[in-house]
Amino acid sequence: MAGPSTHGLFARLKAAAADDWRAYVEHDFVRALADGTLAEASFRHYLEQDYLFLIQFARAYSLAAYKADDLAGMRAATAIADGLLNVEMRLHVDYCAGWGVSAAALEALPEATATIAYTRYVLDRGQSGDLLDLMAALAPCVVGYGEIGARLAADPATKRDGNPYLPWIEMYSGADYGPVAEAAVAELNRLGEQRATGPRMPALVRTFRTATRLEAGFWQMGLDRAM
Amino acid sequence: MAGPSTHGLFARLKAAAADDWRAYVEHDFVRALADGTLAEASFRHYLEQDYLFLIQFARAYSLAAYKADDLAGMRAATAIADGLLNVEMRLHVDYCAGWGVSAAALEALPEATATIAYTRYVLDRGQSGDLLDLMAALAPCVVGYGEIGARLAADPATKRDGNPYLPWIEMYSGADYGPVAEAAVAELNRLGEQRATGPRMPALVRTFRTATRLEAGFWQMGLDRAM
Amino acid sequence: MAGPSTHGLFARLKAAAADDWRAYVEHDFVRALADGTLAEASFRHYLEQDYLFLIQFARAYSLAAYKADDLAGMRAATAIADGLLNVEMRLHVDYCAGWGVSAAALEALPEATATIAYTRYVLDRGQSGDLLDLMAALAPCVVGYGEIGARLAADPATKRDGNPYLPWIEMYSGADYGPVAEAAVAELNRLGEQRATGPRMPALVRTFRTATRLEAGFWQMGLDRAM
Amino acid sequence: MAGPSTHGLFARLKAAAADDWRAYVEHDFVRALADGTLAEASFRHYLEQDYLFLIQFARAYSLAAYKADDLAGMRAATAIADGLLNVEMRLHVDYCAGWGVSAAALEALPEATATIAYTRYVLDRGQSGDLLDLMAALAPCVVGYGEIGARLAADPATKRDGNPYLPWIEMYSGADYGPVAEAAVAELNRLGEQRATGPRMPALVRTFRTATRLEAGFWQMGLDRAM
Repeated sequence: MAGPSTHGLFARLKAAAADDWRAYVEHDFVRALADGTLAEASFRHYLEQDYLFLIQFARAYSLAAYKADDLAGMRAATAIADGLLNVEMRLHVDYCAGWGVSAAALEALPEATATIAYTRYVLDRGQSGDLLDLMAALAPCVVGYGEIGARLAADPATKRDGNPYLPWIEMYSGADYGPVAEAAVAELNRLGEQRATGPRMPALVRTFRTATRLEAGFWQMGLDRAM
Repeated sequence: MAGPSTHGLFARLKAAAADDWRAYVEHDFVRALADGTLAEASFRHYLEQDYLFLIQFARAYSLAAYKADDLAGMRAATAIADGLLNVEMRLHVDYCAGWGVSAAALEALPEATATIAYTRYVLDRGQSGDLLDLMAALAPCVVGYGEIGARLAADPATKRDGNPYLPWIEMYSGADYGPVAEAAVAELNRLGEQRATGPRMPALVRTFRTATRLEAGFWQMGLDRAM
Repeated sequence: MAGPSTHGLFARLKAAAADDWRAYVEHDFVRALADGTLAEASFRHYLEQDYLFLIQFARAYSLAAYKADDLAGMRAATAIADGLLNVEMRLHVDYCAGWGVSAAALEALPEATATIAYTRYVLDRGQSGDLLDLMAALAPCVVGYGEIGARLAADPATKRDGNPYLPWIEMYSGADYGPVAEAAVAELNRLGEQRATGPRMPALVRTFRTATRLEAGFWQMGLDRAM
Repeated sequence: MAGPSTHGLFARLKAAAADDWRAYVEHDFVRALADGTLAEASFRHYLEQDYLFLIQFARAYSLAAYKADDLAGMRAATAIADGLLNVEMRLHVDYCAGWGVSAAALEALPEATATIAYTRYVLDRGQSGDLLDLMAALAPCVVGYGEIGARLAADPATKRDGNPYLPWIEMYSGADYGPVAEAAVAELNRLGEQRATGPRMPALVRTFRTATRLEAGFWQMGLDRAM
């Protein structure tokens, strides 16, 4: 995605929020995933909250389908909501089962403040703004996970043998996830061409930066649990 | 659906709006479909507007997925939105092609006032109220079409030979549509048990009655075109 | 408002929807107000529905306050909602009393399809789009009434002696209403500078044009009542 | 407010969330306000974030005006939004000026995670549910502050001489604030009679409890700053 990703709206937002982006994708939680030193309690807490997070993200994509102003946009957002609800969440349940966390336990968990803050911020940007405001708030998650997965998979320093978090790295660097992240960049760039304009950039940067900070806060929530 | 349909919320709403319900399901447009005397211009105008209507109904079910407060509700609403966008609308395009109306022509049509009034009323009830308010506004369409289809199919007076509208009657009395209407009644009744209460009934009846009146107005829009 | 109104977003939208704009501001209903020939039944029906319309417009400005992204915008929208609820609607009640329509009667009226179509279209554009989409949908009403009032007041052909609709003309050409319409143009132009961009124009024009058509439909609803 | 407050919806919600309520109204931050030992850095951070919080609460009441289904409800919510924007926020600016924090500095502050979590949770409950869901999420703030103010003012152990936080206690125990909290209880109870029903209680309790937890988190955010 060389062309669009270096000139499009996503690249401009990422450049404008460079420090926050780095603090997110290079967070200590990510380093500890890569070298396998992450405390199991941290990962489990992250994983549980990520399940609750996905429920809210499915709501966000349903909202995107409601807000899209053509059939192509409605179909794309509905397909993502459907994928989250019927594929990703079931994978998550399977994955959590491997960590001894049952589906019933997942459903009964209270949301952590970091989870509420991030997800409800995204939903409120979506309701109060237009589809572009919503997509700018969703992008750090969808695209950032792809970037993290690809970097860790390509880095020879990433521990492979005996790293219990290797399946997580493989999931987000794998052939299934790459196109999801690329499609999110392409959609954001397309909306940027249709709806972004110079004077709108400060507000879009603020949204993107806040969402990126809240992503970093989500990692931190995981680390804090281990203490 | 004997039990639920006679005691549940849908049956109570229908009973409370009995005159409007009859004016809708026994509208002259429906009679003219049954005896094959409906002017082709009326049917075509109805069919074209119904396509634009389905786009807004897919938006309404996406909104329902956003508003549902459990995974089962989110999955059910997303499945309906997906079915509308990827099955019903394509069937509609095929059906319209048989009447000489292309997909491109459908997309380019302006919405009639009757279409705007009904669909945006439903969406606004959905945004301003809760999931039950939204479902009460959606019910007259989904359930009414099934009732009309079943009655016309069962009525020996319905013209079959040479009735150009027989495929329409067969669609809404068929094995595919019946469960859709039954599921809508069941979901409304379930929400009614969870969220309806005596003092809420007048507002729910007002919503249901208004939506029913707007359905009748949609038929009338078709008839008016022939004149 | 020479400068902004000829170069800003409002002027561009009005130019792009010129035919629909003319059909609205020069509607037969307006001509009949000017020459005093409008049937009383038409005016009364219009007036009653306009009251229900104002309720929905107050909701639209409350939504604008929710969607504004700075305190100035929130305060401006809240002031308009407050003015509609506590000044305009009470004036309306007084005015209707003069036509023999009580406040209680106003509250109990069902909304006409033309009223539902216009108001819920505006609210849905507001919820699904951003503040600019909402304001583009609100503009034809607020600004058009000022334009109609000013034109009729300046036109020597407007009947004055014995015209029962002179108070209506005086209200919308008066010193109180002018600044309201000018403020709406200025706000739309300001949002246009912040949030509109070339590729967004077709969608904004579609919104503005649809709202203008629905305004004309509102006049027509009044005329139809007399028949 | 003896009658309504012991039997109405508010009293039932508070009883169902008793532990969380106590953790909120008896939080260490509150104790430290009462005995004057709260670190100035904690209070200032709280005060700054509370300003950003009020902006979002004004948005929530604008949303309530949009969602209200009668004129009385619309007027009540609009009056609260107006009061927040034009009275409370200006008082806040004056109050902060006394702590050396300028209005310009307030506007430029980033929101803390605790602020985002609470406010956006309330707004999302409001958009996804009905007016009652929104009011259940707003109640812990409005009513809790009144309860805290009254208790501290009545408690002989509260330090008065030389307590820099006495103006805060006086504000929330004063003649102006009491009726605000009582009106919020009355409105919640009224909506409870109209829209609550047995099966809805678990979801309402969950909303109320989550909002109460997030209020406690807001105090904790203040305390954490001092460290």
